[in-house]
Amino acid sequence: MKDVKNYIEENKQRFLDELFELIRIPSISAESEHKDDMVRCANKWKEFLLAAGVDKAEVMPSAGNPVVYGEKTIDPSKPTVLVYGHYDVMPVEPLAEWRTKPFEPEVIDGKIWARGADDDKGQSFMHAKAFEFMVKTNQLPCNVKFMLEGEEEIGSGSLYGFCEEHKELLKADVILVSDTSMIAQDVPSITSGLRGLCYWDVEVTGANHDLHSGIFGGAVANPINILCKMIADLHDENGHITIPGFYDDVLVISDEERALMAQAPFNEEAYKKELDIKNVHGEKGFTTKERTGIRPCLDICGIWGGHTGEGSKTVLPSKAYAKISTRLVANQDYEKISELFKNYFEAAAPDCVRVKVTPSHGGAAYVAPLEMTAYKAAEKAMQETFGKRPIPTRSGGSIPIVAGFERILGIKSILMGFGLGSDDIHAPNENYPLYNFYKGIETIPYFYQYFTEMSK
Amino acid sequence: MKDVKNYIEENKQRFLDELFELIRIPSISAESEHKDDMVRCANKWKEFLLAAGVDKAEVMPSAGNPVVYGEKTIDPSKPTVLVYGHYDVMPVEPLAEWRTKPFEPEVIDGKIWARGADDDKGQSFMHAKAFEFMVKTNQLPCNVKFMLEGEEEIGSGSLYGFCEEHKELLKADVILVSDTSMIAQDVPSITSGLRGLCYWDVEVTGANHDLHSGIFGGAVANPINILCKMIADLHDENGHITIPGFYDDVLVISDEERALMAQAPFNEEAYKKELDIKNVHGEKGFTTKERTGIRPCLDICGIWGGHTGEGSKTVLPSKAYAKISTRLVANQDYEKISELFKNYFEAAAPDCVRVKVTPSHGGAAYVAPLEMTAYKAAEKAMQETFGKRPIPTRSGGSIPIVAGFERILGIKSILMGFGLGSDDIHAPNENYPLYNFYKGIETIPYFYQYFTEMSK
Repeated sequence: MKDVKNYIEENKQRFLDELFELIRIPSISAESEHKDDMVRCANKWKEFLLAAGVDKAEVMPSAGNPVVYGEKTIDPSKPTVLVYGHYDVMPVEPLAEWRTKPFEPEVIDGKIWARGADDDKGQSFMHAKAFEFMVKTNQLPCNVKFMLEGEEEIGSGSLYGFCEEHKELLKADVILVSDTSMIAQDVPSITSGLRGLCYWDVEVTGANHDLHSGIFGGAVANPINILCKMIADLHDENGHITIPGFYDDVLVISDEERALMAQAPFNEEAYKKELDIKNVHGEKGFTTKERTGIRPCLDICGIWGGHTGEGSKTVLPSKAYAKISTRLVANQDYEKISELFKNYFEAAAPDCVRVKVTPSHGGAAYVAPLEMTAYKAAEKAMQETFGKRPIPTRSGGSIPIVAGFERILGIKSILMGFGLGSDDIHAPNENYPLYNFYKGIETIPYFYQYFTEMSK
Repeated sequence: MKDVKNYIEENKQRFLDELFELIRIPSISAESEHKDDMVRCANKWKEFLLAAGVDKAEVMPSAGNPVVYGEKTIDPSKPTVLVYGHYDVMPVEPLAEWRTKPFEPEVIDGKIWARGADDDKGQSFMHAKAFEFMVKTNQLPCNVKFMLEGEEEIGSGSLYGFCEEHKELLKADVILVSDTSMIAQDVPSITSGLRGLCYWDVEVTGANHDLHSGIFGGAVANPINILCKMIADLHDENGHITIPGFYDDVLVISDEERALMAQAPFNEEAYKKELDIKNVHGEKGFTTKERTGIRPCLDICGIWGGHTGEGSKTVLPSKAYAKISTRLVANQDYEKISELFKNYFEAAAPDCVRVKVTPSHGGAAYVAPLEMTAYKAAEKAMQETFGKRPIPTRSGGSIPIVAGFERILGIKSILMGFGLGSDDIHAPNENYPLYNFYKGIETIPYFYQYFTEMSK
């Protein structure tokens, strides 16, 4: 890949300016008021793909937010890489904790600060620019397809149907995704596994209206107290999840594989210091990396009820709510888990309250075998640009659609992400180092080169 | 009390119009944005007291919201009744559940609908109008003082100091309060006991910022999960509060007194139907009336943390919050309980989180002996206007300042309230029946008459 460094150097400010145009569109898929922003963002992507050199690009309808599709065919006998990314972003609250405006990207201390700077506008845009480089310098070695969806952060609900409907259009040899992190800037890694996800909305109702906590307190169930008890009961004293059958399908990892994983560099003291916690907390019998890599977990992502404003209102509320999620590991079926939890939690409610569980979204876990061609190509590409062999890691995060691609399209994905754990995706002050942004653009063309060569 | 019914009949619309002027001022003491409304409301009260016939009225400064004071002395050798009420009201959220606008009072189905309609604008204003009647018809039998505060709903924080400072000014033989309920419109009752209150704000901190629930979930403590567990652990399986020493000072009620209390009319099936609950819920070994009347309890008045908006954000939050209150019974010292809880809850935190407990406010429980003159006068007054002997009841609610009056001023209070359990004070759709409003105005002058006669 001749002159890739020069090309980046000459165009670095333009790359950033273009990315900022994408970031400034507040494409928050979880909030319905941003419907128009989703369409604006999709159209902006189409514009950028055309400018980068695709033969054609389209904003295609789905059951929900539109999907951006683009392709360039140089020779049907050559392999095809399908680049997947998402143009939607997470909500931004709590706003007060942002040091910059979430949709006004700024470069401070060598990092881009904005919602979507990493996840996934920054990471997916690297692919547009790497592709542009290969086209403009006549070095594109294979065919390329792009697919950018607008619902990844809410579970990719419409993309499953879109894939079913467009199997022919989406035919490819591998799906290339940059939506994950590396261990560190000087410790490149490739994500060889992802956890699955299952998410529910829970509503607990006591009396039919808010009551005076003095007149009724002690005699009428408080839905917050009950919800807390029900949530507490979801874990036992060893940090195991108590839902009957929850672990039934979890594959036991061999001692050998655990020993291999333990070799990945990890400094627990630095981890605790970075998070400002005295101690880690999780399932007994597993290390921190195992707890997020190979074991499922259950977290309350949100809870609310009663008086949450200023001052001390004495109220016995009628309702309490929670958003509950589990991360699943390979072989756990998210639809089975979804049903399991709903039945268990609703049945666990005492007769003084009513409990309603609404399944939200979910997806299966995913594992990429280290023997597959795309893994080897990615490994070699990163070795080329980072000067080090990347380490395979299992991420605790989920990209449910990746398991969906395998199931529906029969195509494996390679998760060559360039983010960092400190990028604070999904949180206030999301950021993405310029180093990683440009290093990604530099590395991607080598993946195309090696993947094409190895596929022969 | 000659012609009281006629006087009410002739002035009923004006009484209502004047009350509505008070209600329209959104004097929410818990919300600092309403500071100016507190002052406006106090001045409106001063205006009404002067119009009703006091010798003098003043809006007096306190450490917080001002106190309205008024007095009329007819003869220093006669008894003095000090009327206490409060002009502040509770917050109004959740706004969506109100059928009318909370600060635009309307009369529908014979009831006033508005925040403060009962608690305590409606109830305290009856005293202004009963006083006006006695003055205008030359039937006032004793001296009267008025004291209306603006912080009752947030714990009367400044009134304790105000009482300390103005002991001489506030000298009286009894304090007359209408801020409680009767059993029913046709079952008059007098509140002979109130529970005390203790309230805390709790903050649980995990990591120093919100984290991605996939990358960190399972390895880093989720402050919501931890808070739920800590809250759940505050009760055992019998509904007892587990804080060591919490029950130490609770007086055991004799079987005889429990049997007497059990005679008060109470229909548990109707109670459950009214609240739309399948079952009541509380401490084992006590009836519903005992659970609210003679036993302490602990309720979560508010909880929040993580993503509480639309959609399904996957986040492992940095913080979780709760507002926790207990209702106390006679002989429990709220300052001791406040300290007990703070120490216990902070110490109960596992080392993966930090827990901060901020005591908010509190007050002691109160008991009015049935033998005191004011109780007998109130009993006779209600007998006169309702045609039935009122039943003494222990309320589950708290008016902490009532115990404060006894401690600081050495004056007992008589709780002659005219509200109903269905008035939904502290909740959306607060209301106050016109029947109760006018019946209160009719009854109060008889209290003055009998109290003056019996005090001779």
